[in-house]
Amino acid sequence: MLEQQSRVEKALNAILPAADQRPEGLHSAMRYAVMGGGKRVRPLLVYAAGELVSANPDRLDLIACAVELIHAYSLVHDDMPCMDDDSLRRGRPTVHVEYDESTALLVGDALQSLAFQVLSERELADEPEGQLQMIEILASAAGSRGMAGGQAIDLESVGRELSEPELEFMHVRKTGALIRASVRLGALCARAHNVDMEALDRFSKVAGLGFQVVDDLLDAQSSTAILGKTAGKDASNNKPTYVSLLGVVRARDLAEELQRDALDVLKQLPQGGARLGDIAGFIFNRDF
Amino acid sequence: MLEQQSRVEKALNAILPAADQRPEGLHSAMRYAVMGGGKRVRPLLVYAAGELVSANPDRLDLIACAVELIHAYSLVHDDMPCMDDDSLRRGRPTVHVEYDESTALLVGDALQSLAFQVLSERELADEPEGQLQMIEILASAAGSRGMAGGQAIDLESVGRELSEPELEFMHVRKTGALIRASVRLGALCARAHNVDMEALDRFSKVAGLGFQVVDDLLDAQSSTAILGKTAGKDASNNKPTYVSLLGVVRARDLAEELQRDALDVLKQLPQGGARLGDIAGFIFNRDF
Repeated sequence: MLEQQSRVEKALNAILPAADQRPEGLHSAMRYAVMGGGKRVRPLLVYAAGELVSANPDRLDLIACAVELIHAYSLVHDDMPCMDDDSLRRGRPTVHVEYDESTALLVGDALQSLAFQVLSERELADEPEGQLQMIEILASAAGSRGMAGGQAIDLESVGRELSEPELEFMHVRKTGALIRASVRLGALCARAHNVDMEALDRFSKVAGLGFQVVDDLLDAQSSTAILGKTAGKDASNNKPTYVSLLGVVRARDLAEELQRDALDVLKQLPQGGARLGDIAGFIFNRDF
Repeated sequence: MLEQQSRVEKALNAILPAADQRPEGLHSAMRYAVMGGGKRVRPLLVYAAGELVSANPDRLDLIACAVELIHAYSLVHDDMPCMDDDSLRRGRPTVHVEYDESTALLVGDALQSLAFQVLSERELADEPEGQLQMIEILASAAGSRGMAGGQAIDLESVGRELSEPELEFMHVRKTGALIRASVRLGALCARAHNVDMEALDRFSKVAGLGFQVVDDLLDAQSSTAILGKTAGKDASNNKPTYVSLLGVVRARDLAEELQRDALDVLKQLPQGGARLGDIAGFIFNRDF
């Protein structure tokens, strides 16, 4: 996985406008927002799904960049004072703290535009129709019926008790949509006759939900130093989570059940899903 | 022009998620942001350029929607407290006033995603490669080297004196980029052998700059009641404008000069640019 993480870092570095290109302040802040580390889980999913269909690695670099740019923009906006109001991300000050709020707003806006520019300016699929489909998938996953919609439900839910289906409805959008899109985009990058796309999609849905359950457990049980972002935020913000709904023990059981489901689905894919299995391991076994 | 304005209103209404679709608050706010009137100058440019190349009107509807969604998202974010902090737009409370700041942030984000979804989900050009080019044009025009970059320069320039080339550099990006993209997208919607694309591009550059000069004159000389947004904001925000740089008389001269240039370029196009001439008239002769 380190190899893929370093591939996407290099590709992101090449794609982001130089910090000395005008407007310098905005471009430097865009680099600060994107190049500050992170696990690069979504790019890893792009590469792993792409390898299953023997996709061209240079194409996968650009697709991996596009999903990471969308993810990075969402973090910058989510951290702003009018949203989660967080001052720490990946162990460093958040963008609106290091720069200012207006810069953070424009950084997020420009990173989203850049994601669609990256997905449209070079050949990334065997047919251009396939590439248009990829853009449509990313746009839907990011929009009001995907990630932005999940974020809106998250904000509406502060202080409310959600049922488990309501919590799932939110997370399928807030984090699940982009994770699912990452797997689909990687797999659409080349024609695949031996890959069961439905199984791949089931895997990404389960892994996406699992990712969130583990995130909730980490927020409740880990420390700010280990997370590189403020721990215990969900409880102090009175946000419904799998931990607040189910308690730690049942939330852990749910994570284990989702991990088993994910690994079961992978058996239906060539080479047992190959690297997707490693990423599932990574998602489900992050440090508590 | 009324016919095209009503066409794009209808198309926007059909494209925006229903206000009773979850998350209802976000979808209702997206509709509030987009459906509140406005001159629809960018859609008018799409239709007029598209007519010159005999493009399919149903395709033009969707392209017109995409550019208007990008424009609408930029207004919602620009009005937020951390940017221009404006409470009035098109004669109504701005989105963060009518709803709240976090909703305004997500409305802008989701409208941008929706623009790219609209440009990718149906066939909009004679070849799919042409449609990918259209997406690339809109993404570049919206991003850090286009509209968002112009906005960043605008914020950096508060309280500073800019030279005329610096002011032009900012406006070419802040408002010019999307106006230019609107004309290009309309013209790319069908193959055109008799249309001089370079002349069309020169027209849109001149019209885009003229639009801004007229906007600066309106802000300085008109009333809040007529504009439907707060008048005199530029001076009270200490922003460099063509009026602050050149004074009213020379700014008016510049607008007239740009109008003559725009009409000259149109003579090089079939039917004298057809409806583009009407829109130039509209841009340059708005009420002072």
